[in-house]
Amino acid sequence: MVSGITKDAMYEIINFIVKSIDLIEDYSKENMINLLITARKENKRVFVIGAGRSGLIARAFAMRLLHLGFNVYVIGETILPRASPGDILLAISGSGRTKLVVAAAEAAKGALMKVVAITTYPDSPLGRMADIVVRIPGRTKMAVEEDYISRQILGIHEPLAPLGTLFEDTTLIFLDGIIVELMNRLGVTEEELMNRHANIE
Amino acid sequence: MVSGITKDAMYEIINFIVKSIDLIEDYSKENMINLLITARKENKRVFVIGAGRSGLIARAFAMRLLHLGFNVYVIGETILPRASPGDILLAISGSGRTKLVVAAAEAAKGALMKVVAITTYPDSPLGRMADIVVRIPGRTKMAVEEDYISRQILGIHEPLAPLGTLFEDTTLIFLDGIIVELMNRLGVTEEELMNRHANIE
Amino acid sequence: MVSGITKDAMYEIINFIVKSIDLIEDYSKENMINLLITARKENKRVFVIGAGRSGLIARAFAMRLLHLGFNVYVIGETILPRASPGDILLAISGSGRTKLVVAAAEAAKGALMKVVAITTYPDSPLGRMADIVVRIPGRTKMAVEEDYISRQILGIHEPLAPLGTLFEDTTLIFLDGIIVELMNRLGVTEEELMNRHANIE
Amino acid sequence: MVSGITKDAMYEIINFIVKSIDLIEDYSKENMINLLITARKENKRVFVIGAGRSGLIARAFAMRLLHLGFNVYVIGETILPRASPGDILLAISGSGRTKLVVAAAEAAKGALMKVVAITTYPDSPLGRMADIVVRIPGRTKMAVEEDYISRQILGIHEPLAPLGTLFEDTTLIFLDGIIVELMNRLGVTEEELMNRHANIE
Repeated sequence: MVSGITKDAMYEIINFIVKSIDLIEDYSKENMINLLITARKENKRVFVIGAGRSGLIARAFAMRLLHLGFNVYVIGETILPRASPGDILLAISGSGRTKLVVAAAEAAKGALMKVVAITTYPDSPLGRMADIVVRIPGRTKMAVEEDYISRQILGIHEPLAPLGTLFEDTTLIFLDGIIVELMNRLGVTEEELMNRHANIE
Repeated sequence: MVSGITKDAMYEIINFIVKSIDLIEDYSKENMINLLITARKENKRVFVIGAGRSGLIARAFAMRLLHLGFNVYVIGETILPRASPGDILLAISGSGRTKLVVAAAEAAKGALMKVVAITTYPDSPLGRMADIVVRIPGRTKMAVEEDYISRQILGIHEPLAPLGTLFEDTTLIFLDGIIVELMNRLGVTEEELMNRHANIE
Repeated sequence: MVSGITKDAMYEIINFIVKSIDLIEDYSKENMINLLITARKENKRVFVIGAGRSGLIARAFAMRLLHLGFNVYVIGETILPRASPGDILLAISGSGRTKLVVAAAEAAKGALMKVVAITTYPDSPLGRMADIVVRIPGRTKMAVEEDYISRQILGIHEPLAPLGTLFEDTTLIFLDGIIVELMNRLGVTEEELMNRHANIE
Repeated sequence: MVSGITKDAMYEIINFIVKSIDLIEDYSKENMINLLITARKENKRVFVIGAGRSGLIARAFAMRLLHLGFNVYVIGETILPRASPGDILLAISGSGRTKLVVAAAEAAKGALMKVVAITTYPDSPLGRMADIVVRIPGRTKMAVEEDYISRQILGIHEPLAPLGTLFEDTTLIFLDGIIVELMNRLGVTEEELMNRHANIE
């Protein structure tokens, strides 16, 4: 059994995610899932982007979308086709201000793509540009005074988990939940996922 | 409030992580932390590796080690120095059989590195080669009959989360817990982490 | 005008490439191009792999194949679909012994893919496994005594360019030549290339 | 012996590089080398960036700088430390207008870094911002009428090599020439390069 500070921090993260389930707006999840299902039916592409650890979470989601049969791409990797109107950009940024991500969202709007923002701050540059905003609580790298929701979740004590950890981990679990709902709605079995899993890696 | 299958899947993942806290052996966590602290003191390098989503979790951990002042590298990226005896390889593989990861561990043993394996199967090729094995429960891509621990955690029902999801998400939260304990033991503040965070990205 | 050792080294590399044009077997180039054209017609996938700088050359080629309308993927990146029989693995390794690349070629053979090897050593593990070998001269990291062709090209002096440089640079120029021939044979214009170029990067 | 269009295109590229040796200003090469040598002595970091194929060339150069004993990093990869005043950003962009690269150069100036631009257009946004501009001829993706130097090199015929190929290939050979001169000036042998080459990849 894990003990010590590692255990305390794990519980802090888990409690944060549990409370986030109550705070994430269900209609935003619904909108996101519907947009993705339509994209798959109409053979649109999904592009994902994020900087730092948010970028890794974006890629983890992209891998599962690939297994689900989506045409999905990671901005910054070698194989990056041209985006067309109606393609989707899924952009992850806790602060909603990460330059790289905001620039990609601007380019996406210019290319008439649909932008889904996953952010703690709907009123950020990224959030304001997005067609769909999914608000995920988080204690991002932004100034503490803006950090109302996270304080509310965490209570009065200082959080243990540093920087964007709470946002990033919550986002991963949320997106993995989305994958299960997509499997269900699209009628894709785990065996089919497996059959799309890379065999040369 | 998130509803539907997404919510059910998020709770499944969270419950799995909560039960994992009980099952992960504390001494393995202690050994891993002590090895890392010694490596930082003695200016040894830490290399991380994993395939697919496990590789992304490995990178998320590597980023935080960088912020903590470690000399850390990701196998497969451009900037990869030569490893020396006493350097650490942290290898993540749910099944412990991923070819790429096993090959890296073999090369690491040949280079007299210390191998830390994070895996569900201590008796796998990776597990048997490792100096320290941290056993993280998971429902990996291996045959179901070997999957005792995960069944025990999940109860009798079929899990919702596909493939390696439970292992990967548990590993991320565990490693983020480790980061908090390392911050504490090394006396590194969040401000210092921030000061090592990339400013050109 | 560039002067000094930089100039001497640039001329050495250029002279090496010029002499390589004489030494690369034309039928191997033809076989490679025909295989690629058939793959595109039959909607097969092309996967590329290489370690270190050879991996970067492989990616530079993959980008142009994407612009030419190929279904192309880079092993090691996030978006990596499952390979099917008849798909192509293009593997670049000067020595033909790079573990990562040889392992991928083995997996590819197991998946009934066609393997194209770009190597200095047709008799290497990679070369022997390949369906098509394109022999590119190079002074690879292998022992000097095996390095007959490169010595012949370079004459008696020690080369200036270190390690795999001559192989890598020759391979890039050769593959860029292949791209021009593919454009011509497939009737793809530069404008069409441009239209497939990423617009969100 | 390679024949056909592949051969013609290879010669076109080679002739372009040969003429580029005459056109690249020697003082810009000198300035770049001196800045790099000083950086290594003073233990400054070198960061490289480029988009698309220019990014791959930047990484190929970064690998050799690593082998030469530099502290070098690739923007966009996982392990990216914070830059300090006096650190170097080497930015490669044929047009000098690539958004990602220009944004990085702006951030670098803000962080009091030295910016080295490798571009065809010294008067571009990137070029104007740089402390040192190395002008490499190229037929970039910019409008043809600005493409004086490349026309002069190529003569009156339309080039075979598409898009940024001529710039990218010339830049690779130029930077590999720089590596040889750095080896010589720093007194680093090929054996020492080899000893810094990755052993776990």
